[in-house]
Amino acid sequence: MPSRRKLFPTADDAETAFYEAFERADLGAMMAVWAASDDVVCIHPTGPRLSGFEAVRESWGQIFSGGAQLRARTVDVRKFDGQSVAVRSVVEILTAPGSQGSPQSVLATNVYELGDGGWRMTIHHASPMPEASAPADEPSPPSHTLH
Amino acid sequence: MPSRRKLFPTADDAETAFYEAFERADLGAMMAVWAASDDVVCIHPTGPRLSGFEAVRESWGQIFSGGAQLRARTVDVRKFDGQSVAVRSVVEILTAPGSQGSPQSVLATNVYELGDGGWRMTIHHASPMPEASAPADEPSPPSHTLH
Repeated sequence: MPSRRKLFPTADDAETAFYEAFERADLGAMMAVWAASDDVVCIHPTGPRLSGFEAVRESWGQIFSGGAQLRARTVDVRKFDGQSVAVRSVVEILTAPGSQGSPQSVLATNVYELGDGGWRMTIHHASPMPEASAPADEPSPPSHTLH
Repeated sequence: MPSRRKLFPTADDAETAFYEAFERADLGAMMAVWAASDDVVCIHPTGPRLSGFEAVRESWGQIFSGGAQLRARTVDVRKFDGQSVAVRSVVEILTAPGSQGSPQSVLATNVYELGDGGWRMTIHHASPMPEASAPADEPSPPSHTLH
C-alpha cells in the first residue's frame, strides 16, 4: 500500500492530510495519516470510543461509503507542540456542498505522534458543538453537564 | 494562592490530582492542575469549548457549586507520552454516592504540558459515552455520525 510510505514531516502536515482525506472521502489517504497501532483512538461525534487501527479504518470506511462528502475547515486552532507528541484543538466547520443548510460545527482534539521519521495521528476525539454555544466571554452555565 | 505552587512531577500525577479535585469538588485543587494560560481548552460533556484559564475556572466553579459530588474512576487508559506533552485517553466511570442508578460513562481526552518544572493540564475534552456502545470488538456502525 504505497500510501503507508507517505511521511508527514510535521504535525501540521498530518493535520492537513487528515482533513483533505476527509473531504475527499479517501480511505487510503485517511488511514495513511493514522499510526498503525493498536492504541490509536477515534471518537466520532456522539459515537463510541474506537480503539486500534482496524476498528478506526472500519469506521472511516463505513462513513465514506455513505457517499456524503463534506467540506471541512478548521477555526480557532490551539496548538500544543512537543518534540514527539503534538495536539491540535480545533473547531471543525463542516458544509455539505450545495446545501442551503447551516454549517455544522464539531469540536475536535487531534493528537499526533512522531514515529518512523514522520508524524501520524493517534487520537481523533470529536463531539458536536452545541448550537446554543455562548460567546467565549459569556460561557453558558453548565447546568446540564456532569463535568 | 499556595495551591499554585504545587508541582506535579509527572503527567500521571497531574491526572490523579485532576480526578481527586473533581471528586472533592475542590476548585483550588482543580485549578492548581491547570496551566495558567489563555490557551487552555475545556469541553464539558455536551458543552461548548471554553478557552482560557479564567473561563475554565468559572465553569468548574459553577459545576462544583451545584453541590453534586461524584466518584470518578478511569478505565481503558491509553497513554501517549512525550517529553513535554502527554495525553491520556480514558473512559470515566462516574458514580453518585448512594445512588441506585447506573454509573455514567464519559469519554475524555486529557492533555498535559511540562512547564515551570511541573506538568499541568492544557486540554480536557469530555463527551458522553453512548449508552448503546458496542463492545470494542464489535463497533457499532456510525450511521448517525458526521465523521
